[in-house]
Amino acid sequence: MYKMKKIGILGGGQLGRMLLQEGANYPLETFVMENDPNCPAAHLCHHFVQGDIRNYDDVFAFGQMVDIITIEIESVNVDALEALKTLGKTVIPNPSVLRIINNKINQKAFYAEHAIPSPAFTVTNNLADLQQQISWLPAVHKIAQGGYDGRGVQLLKSSADITKGFDAPSVLEKMVDIKMEIAITVAVGIDGSRALYPAVEMIFDPYLNLLDYQVCPSQLDQKLIWKAEAIALQVAKSFNGPGLYAVEMLVDIHQNIWVNETAPRVHNSGHHTIEAHKTSQYDMLWRILLGYPLGSTEALSASALVNLIGAEGHSGPVEYDGIEKLLKMDNVYVHLYGKEITKPGRKMGHVTILGSDRLSCIIKSRLVKETASVVSKP
Amino acid sequence: MYKMKKIGILGGGQLGRMLLQEGANYPLETFVMENDPNCPAAHLCHHFVQGDIRNYDDVFAFGQMVDIITIEIESVNVDALEALKTLGKTVIPNPSVLRIINNKINQKAFYAEHAIPSPAFTVTNNLADLQQQISWLPAVHKIAQGGYDGRGVQLLKSSADITKGFDAPSVLEKMVDIKMEIAITVAVGIDGSRALYPAVEMIFDPYLNLLDYQVCPSQLDQKLIWKAEAIALQVAKSFNGPGLYAVEMLVDIHQNIWVNETAPRVHNSGHHTIEAHKTSQYDMLWRILLGYPLGSTEALSASALVNLIGAEGHSGPVEYDGIEKLLKMDNVYVHLYGKEITKPGRKMGHVTILGSDRLSCIIKSRLVKETASVVSKP
Repeated sequence: MYKMKKIGILGGGQLGRMLLQEGANYPLETFVMENDPNCPAAHLCHHFVQGDIRNYDDVFAFGQMVDIITIEIESVNVDALEALKTLGKTVIPNPSVLRIINNKINQKAFYAEHAIPSPAFTVTNNLADLQQQISWLPAVHKIAQGGYDGRGVQLLKSSADITKGFDAPSVLEKMVDIKMEIAITVAVGIDGSRALYPAVEMIFDPYLNLLDYQVCPSQLDQKLIWKAEAIALQVAKSFNGPGLYAVEMLVDIHQNIWVNETAPRVHNSGHHTIEAHKTSQYDMLWRILLGYPLGSTEALSASALVNLIGAEGHSGPVEYDGIEKLLKMDNVYVHLYGKEITKPGRKMGHVTILGSDRLSCIIKSRLVKETASVVSKP
Repeated sequence: MYKMKKIGILGGGQLGRMLLQEGANYPLETFVMENDPNCPAAHLCHHFVQGDIRNYDDVFAFGQMVDIITIEIESVNVDALEALKTLGKTVIPNPSVLRIINNKINQKAFYAEHAIPSPAFTVTNNLADLQQQISWLPAVHKIAQGGYDGRGVQLLKSSADITKGFDAPSVLEKMVDIKMEIAITVAVGIDGSRALYPAVEMIFDPYLNLLDYQVCPSQLDQKLIWKAEAIALQVAKSFNGPGLYAVEMLVDIHQNIWVNETAPRVHNSGHHTIEAHKTSQYDMLWRILLGYPLGSTEALSASALVNLIGAEGHSGPVEYDGIEKLLKMDNVYVHLYGKEITKPGRKMGHVTILGSDRLSCIIKSRLVKETASVVSKP
């Protein structure tokens, strides 16, 4: 007799929300754990469990309720996941993958060990340590643990910037002469089958260090795309387990490709797959979790992605200015995450733009950015 | 200050489930009322309220919790909706529309009154009445109230069939020499703006009287399409209020077009719009409910739709045979409704097939039907 599978998601943000949206295409019993009972994913699951995803006891108790456990954010209690795996629960991604990725020092060492190109680095344990490494500048200082969405990353251009560094174990990474940032998501099934999504090209806001907009396909030369795909595949193979791997890469002005970091989960760089690809990253993760065959990653059209981010100077109950204008635009798909409070830089929604080619998508994405803003009004 | 709108849906079946899936793209607080706490929509809303959608007190109490009320099935307590409307609640569709549609005698009279072509009919109040109307045969007998998904409709080919008729107020409709069945959904915004979806062509299972498969675009001559569009628009205009109107029409062998019936809500004939059209019928209804501009109804490609229906002779906990094979097929999108128990003829899921043209979609839809079945195993 068929038994409806019980799936637990650690974290209840917008990634969990969109995962559950797609999950309603399958017969499932869904569980979400998160501290905030009004988080974006709280009302789309069968069972919301209030709890701390970083706490061993909370995660362990949660995991015992379900058959399969996944994450929508990396900062979870990995010890508990390892204990759950020992008890026979399916945990995707593998806890050992999280152990590597959740600590940037481990992540960099892992790339080096597996001959995966990643910018040269050294480890600093505190500010005093950092002071000794002036010769590495210009460099990027990345805190080993706890960074997220641009927090925990600091550009150190010259010795004058040293005080901006982290007084905690960190990676000091040689600055790369970046020509372009790209991301490739690799899906790995339980049976070892693999599928690559086409590379997306990302343009970042230099101040917030948050994605400004993103476009697919990338305009990178085909040979460099092949190289990037080979590297992304190597990353996924090295992690040696089922799951989604969003591999963020830097292309430098000398045509070198360097892995920046990997997220072993659904990722902001894959939002556009909901409308623009045959199988969305969310549907793909369900297929992996449920042991179904992987879907096609083929693009249906070119696309761009604009994050709707809380405007500077606006904190409080959210309003979406210009949203009706956005909803009138052709080939524009609006996703609002249902967060009640906006803050500067907070991800409040996103917009996917479809088009016949890359350029028309870029042009429309600029129009989208000018049309809508996320604010708070008294 | 922006206040998140509270939306109540009467009914918790698959239409409500898919409506809530799309609703997660907007900032909303959602409420569902339904008797069965394990219905397909129960776990995708903020607040599930157990109650009888046909009961005045239940519907009235539910409506007072929300700002906007809609339906996913017509058989709701219309008196309560009228009382709620009087109190200032937004009710879409208008209760007066439900009053007409929920009684097939009223619905037929309405079409006649508004010069909307619909097959000739007479009213029978009981079986004795029906006996007097032999001259109308061959005819279709439709019970005035309570029919749904093929229940409450009986073909009466000759006087020998009379005992199959309904011993209750019913419509006796002259049989039309059907060449084709089509459906056109019309969206009407709160501001009176209107948008038509392209006609879909439906092929019914003659035994279950349930949709076998459906294809878009229709192969009907362009002039007949225009005529059907004009009729569907006339239906929507006559109902004189915002909402979605799925207008089912019969095309006879003499090229006449007759309105069969109208559903003032999201409808089975619009499932394919999720993947095949720029704006799905579900997103369109949210736009109407929230007062947002209507979206584009343009098709992204040709499409076919196959319902996954509980197989004959199988009642009990559901299993989806062949589902993995379906998930391997290109351009095939699987939706399972999460119902735990299958019964012969029960709608358990659907599959949308995209393709470059009508014929390739039809061929693949036949393959889909051969590949998957909904069964129960001991």
